[in-house]
Amino acid sequence: IKESQLTSDSADKGEYRHYMLKEIYEQPFAVAQALEGRFINGRLLENAFGHNAAEVFDKIKSIQILACGTSYHSGLVAKYWFEDLARVPCHIEVASEFRYRNPVLAPDTLIVTISQSGETADTLAALQEAKKMGAKYSLAICNVPESSLVRESDLVLMTRAGPEIGVASTKAFTTQLVTLMLLVIAVGRRFALSEKLEQKITSELFGLPGKIEKVLALDSEIEVLSKQFAEKEHALFLGRGTHYPIAMEGALKLKEISYIHAEAYPAGELKHGPLALIDADMPVITVAPNNSLLEKLKSNMQEVSARGGQLIVFMDETLHAVSDSNVQIVKVPQVENEISPIVYTIPLQLLSYYVAVIRGTDVDQPRNLAKSVTVE
Amino acid sequence: IKESQLTSDSADKGEYRHYMLKEIYEQPFAVAQALEGRFINGRLLENAFGHNAAEVFDKIKSIQILACGTSYHSGLVAKYWFEDLARVPCHIEVASEFRYRNPVLAPDTLIVTISQSGETADTLAALQEAKKMGAKYSLAICNVPESSLVRESDLVLMTRAGPEIGVASTKAFTTQLVTLMLLVIAVGRRFALSEKLEQKITSELFGLPGKIEKVLALDSEIEVLSKQFAEKEHALFLGRGTHYPIAMEGALKLKEISYIHAEAYPAGELKHGPLALIDADMPVITVAPNNSLLEKLKSNMQEVSARGGQLIVFMDETLHAVSDSNVQIVKVPQVENEISPIVYTIPLQLLSYYVAVIRGTDVDQPRNLAKSVTVE
Repeated sequence: IKESQLTSDSADKGEYRHYMLKEIYEQPFAVAQALEGRFINGRLLENAFGHNAAEVFDKIKSIQILACGTSYHSGLVAKYWFEDLARVPCHIEVASEFRYRNPVLAPDTLIVTISQSGETADTLAALQEAKKMGAKYSLAICNVPESSLVRESDLVLMTRAGPEIGVASTKAFTTQLVTLMLLVIAVGRRFALSEKLEQKITSELFGLPGKIEKVLALDSEIEVLSKQFAEKEHALFLGRGTHYPIAMEGALKLKEISYIHAEAYPAGELKHGPLALIDADMPVITVAPNNSLLEKLKSNMQEVSARGGQLIVFMDETLHAVSDSNVQIVKVPQVENEISPIVYTIPLQLLSYYVAVIRGTDVDQPRNLAKSVTVE
Repeated sequence: IKESQLTSDSADKGEYRHYMLKEIYEQPFAVAQALEGRFINGRLLENAFGHNAAEVFDKIKSIQILACGTSYHSGLVAKYWFEDLARVPCHIEVASEFRYRNPVLAPDTLIVTISQSGETADTLAALQEAKKMGAKYSLAICNVPESSLVRESDLVLMTRAGPEIGVASTKAFTTQLVTLMLLVIAVGRRFALSEKLEQKITSELFGLPGKIEKVLALDSEIEVLSKQFAEKEHALFLGRGTHYPIAMEGALKLKEISYIHAEAYPAGELKHGPLALIDADMPVITVAPNNSLLEKLKSNMQEVSARGGQLIVFMDETLHAVSDSNVQIVKVPQVENEISPIVYTIPLQLLSYYVAVIRGTDVDQPRNLAKSVTVE
């Protein structure tokens, strides 16, 4: 399989004001690219990961994910997927912590590293550390074919997002999620992923570009919403399950480009401290798809509202709920539970983008940050 | 072993302005109580955990810690200890996430729950969930002998902190750390904890009350420091390794009682986003003991300082560093690496206490929070 070539055209802003917005809008195409040529008759080809991938997958008993920043968030979603959908034991750790703490690694663990650039210093060093500890198998999820991470890994699945210029990662993140789901399928076949669930997920993945197109239509609604938001200096993002890492990623985007101090919490931890912060100056953004955790999230939301907090809720369109003075509801097109975290990423990207534009920050080159963190 | 009785005296503020300050000052005694009668000839007695503890410890192959809030932070320190000091595989998760996500549990895992009250709803439910999934062994680290968590666990190690009235946990946290270290010793004997390291840690634990007394002497220096700090609305706490959870706990204390939006990061993640937030309005607190990670932390600190951020550094007294206009250094009495996270907790407790007093909040009963979170 030949990776798509980067052309000079793809590094042009075109009609978009910023690279970030362009890259947000490229996601239906990027996600389609990440799936392209990797299936035959609707069935995932394991040699997409490397010619000896099937052999490696036959041997592994657990997964250890290592990553930093945004890539850590995609890995965290994958941890939930691996264990819930396929019963594959999966652990994840921030690379800079793993490399220095003398961790215990189970035998026959597949080390999965995730990095857009493939040059993230801590991720590379964590992979080397894992190898020193005896790890025999490694796989990189990466966007740059010629990168160090790709060279140093046994197996590779390129995200094929195309060049990402905006420092705040968008399409690199969603294509990481898609490629990680392909890994869940491939490894999951050796564990408890049923043929039926594999087919369901596969079909959902192929529907993803269309879903993302639909969600992008929320653009102007989110632009309006961002106006009241742009004056705040704080924000809390809440989610549960696979949407907790999406809340983390939403908070990170807002931090990176709008310099608003946004922090994410798993919603269940709200009562264990952060609830003390809630007042009219601290809006709370919740990611509330229509899954089994919705009732729990609703009760968390009531706590916030009762304390004068302003709520913005991204919620499945089929649910009955209306905005009031304290709660603003954004209805998100219905999406299947497995791929829902990928879809709910999009409105949070748009929110941080429009807030940053209103605040007049340098969206594509936020202060103090570099695109690839190639030093410690 | 008979647990210490709670007397009405112990619920009296005495000479202290707030329960929280009293409880901070009770820590040398509370820590001594947590060790009392649990050793014979300097060797930890395993029946301190229950009469059949040795049998259980012989069988377990890994540890899964489940907790919420402050107790989650003590568990996170224990994860580093279990793996680094004794090579015991250890995983940890926020109880509200574990209970709903359909996790994979390895066979022969000891479920370790941590809760001051023993009535934390999510922690109790997570324990029940683990049992449903086939977990055969459970151990509670708890401060209330008659609690549900104690009743529902096979093994128990009481923290013996005495009644804690302040909503923001202080002595319950440090005694959790001490009792968790006892568990590391007991389980670690079956793994790679050497006799020599066990003796070293044991001797360090017995020196801990004296160390904490010394650190409490920083009280007035920290009170002065807190004056400039009290006007801020944001703070970032950085740490690495076992001191990353201490940074998390420091940030949580400040959130809970001063309503300052404090957030903790593992220092290595600074460049992956939060560095964009750094300016003169966002002080950065770093926990920098004199261990192998100090050089790394120093480079992180320089990044903060170069961007106009105000730094407060809690640092080993033997290190050469002087305060300047951007950096305030608080020298902490020298302490051995293994017990260092327990000692570095104390100055962060004092900092949040004095900041809250200056801001005039209700220190012992912060808004929106309850002492025990007995509902979801």
